[in-house]
Amino acid sequence: MDRITIVGIGSIGASIGLALKRAKLTNLEVVGSSGNGKALSAVSKMGAVDTTTGNLRSAIANAGLVILDAPVGETQELLEAIGPVLEDGCVVTDTSPTKVPLMNWADENLPRGVSFVGGRPLPKSVPADIEEADPSIFEDTDYCIIPSKSADQAAVRTVVGLVERLQAKPLFLDAHEHDSYAAAMTYLPIVMSSAFVTATAGSASWREMHRLATSEFRDFSSLASNDPQDNRDASLANPKTLVHWLDRLITVLYGFRNQINDNSEGLFDSFINAWEAHAKWESGAVGSDDEEGRARIPTAGESMATFMMGGRLAERYREYTARDNKKKAGWKYLRKT
Amino acid sequence: MDRITIVGIGSIGASIGLALKRAKLTNLEVVGSSGNGKALSAVSKMGAVDTTTGNLRSAIANAGLVILDAPVGETQELLEAIGPVLEDGCVVTDTSPTKVPLMNWADENLPRGVSFVGGRPLPKSVPADIEEADPSIFEDTDYCIIPSKSADQAAVRTVVGLVERLQAKPLFLDAHEHDSYAAAMTYLPIVMSSAFVTATAGSASWREMHRLATSEFRDFSSLASNDPQDNRDASLANPKTLVHWLDRLITVLYGFRNQINDNSEGLFDSFINAWEAHAKWESGAVGSDDEEGRARIPTAGESMATFMMGGRLAERYREYTARDNKKKAGWKYLRKT
Repeated sequence: MDRITIVGIGSIGASIGLALKRAKLTNLEVVGSSGNGKALSAVSKMGAVDTTTGNLRSAIANAGLVILDAPVGETQELLEAIGPVLEDGCVVTDTSPTKVPLMNWADENLPRGVSFVGGRPLPKSVPADIEEADPSIFEDTDYCIIPSKSADQAAVRTVVGLVERLQAKPLFLDAHEHDSYAAAMTYLPIVMSSAFVTATAGSASWREMHRLATSEFRDFSSLASNDPQDNRDASLANPKTLVHWLDRLITVLYGFRNQINDNSEGLFDSFINAWEAHAKWESGAVGSDDEEGRARIPTAGESMATFMMGGRLAERYREYTARDNKKKAGWKYLRKT
Repeated sequence: MDRITIVGIGSIGASIGLALKRAKLTNLEVVGSSGNGKALSAVSKMGAVDTTTGNLRSAIANAGLVILDAPVGETQELLEAIGPVLEDGCVVTDTSPTKVPLMNWADENLPRGVSFVGGRPLPKSVPADIEEADPSIFEDTDYCIIPSKSADQAAVRTVVGLVERLQAKPLFLDAHEHDSYAAAMTYLPIVMSSAFVTATAGSASWREMHRLATSEFRDFSSLASNDPQDNRDASLANPKTLVHWLDRLITVLYGFRNQINDNSEGLFDSFINAWEAHAKWESGAVGSDDEEGRARIPTAGESMATFMMGGRLAERYREYTARDNKKKAGWKYLRKT
């Protein structure tokens, strides 16, 4: 009987468990382990695991694959705890969006004969809580695989096999590369969200102003409601690269601020550039430029706008690029009055 | 037959139309007018209006109430166009999140005998497009009413009546007050979103990095996909107050940046403060402090955490405030190994 143990199980770990059960693998036991009894009873009830236990030592005994599904701030302690207990040949992977420090902790704490192969699912959506775990969130998505230097080929194949069972696509990355991207895509929004809440809710007018908090406030403030310890740990996991992205963001924000303050012509271009970059990303066109890159953007943007938005915005885009009639976009029918 | 005309109709205007039809008012005709034929056929098909026309003059002839539902950048032109045509006694309202410039434009363009009473719905959610218009989005929400200086009492009562038909609650505000709050709650996120996209998608690593764009990127970039002309107009509607909020945000962001860079003890407090401010907002507890305000926060926060989050986070909150055992939060069961 092969054993896969999911440790510190949250909504991603539970979704992995459900996907493994859905694959109907024979001769496999999936074990869930956590210090949180409520999480254990939830994963047990939904059938994401075969057995659960609050005893970490017995959970990982004889495991062939251990999946750590815990906040990055708790992973070091977990690796310290499991290192002495793991059997020779065991493979350890994880699900956190931080890899450089994890590689070091794994190196320090796991014995020879145990391979660490970092994992980073990029699901379509993250279930809000464990009860909403869903095996389909991995289908046709990328799943980063970041092997440690000492990991053997068999261990990498084991994690590739896991990824394929989830119906996801392996994406091999270097740990530093991964962490720089994750800092911009995952951790920068956490800091933005927390700073936004502090800047607004910390102001003297908040008692009145909060009544005007619409969907924009709800969406932009939601990451500030993560456990603050997790947010702190996430920010400090790779501080250098996060500071790099924060500096970049602050510079761009200050540029917008000055263009707004000066009523600058360039403000319109700034919003067009952001709109176009977003449209390229949304339509899956990133990286499909020709060699000249941004030089051809108006044409590319126009065809993309037509493709994505249909009428109104495409027409506007033509007007932007022509720039001869900015103010009269749209409301031409007014002239009939 | 009374006539209400919704001009420049989008998803909010269509939702207002649906709510008016749902109220089954007798002797009322609801007219939809726009330069966008597709929008007109959509609102006609869903039964949000009785009739539609692309001819603005005939749409507003004999109207007792005109509701402008258009981006702020188009409203000035609309007011210029309708001013000479409106009948004596007509009431004009709008739905835009900008009031100070609108008050001026209304003052300049509407004749004596026509009252402008600004409106600002604060719906539970904004339907993504006109086809998703929904009359229930206004139920039990605040709806700002901002009368112009020259508006007569009957006109204010007309708009209050409209708000009540939508099952919303009138919230009277001064135009300057409204615009300062809207700049922080509605326009600041637009600039943040656009700056975030520019800072990340404009970097050399974007071609690789965009594969790691998870739900955080999707959520934080979405406002950059608004029509860039609307985003520009929104930013310039009240530039002074938006610049004030941008300066505040940049200052707070820079504080986080330095705390991350210096691995400062204070970083944890910064995330706790943002978390707590968000929790207070989410639980409806803003303004319920006693006179001492922030001095009592730990106790208030603790009870709120218990109320809102139940076990894990409430326990952590006690640990934060005690501060004697930060690192060991949670994973106590590790000690069993």
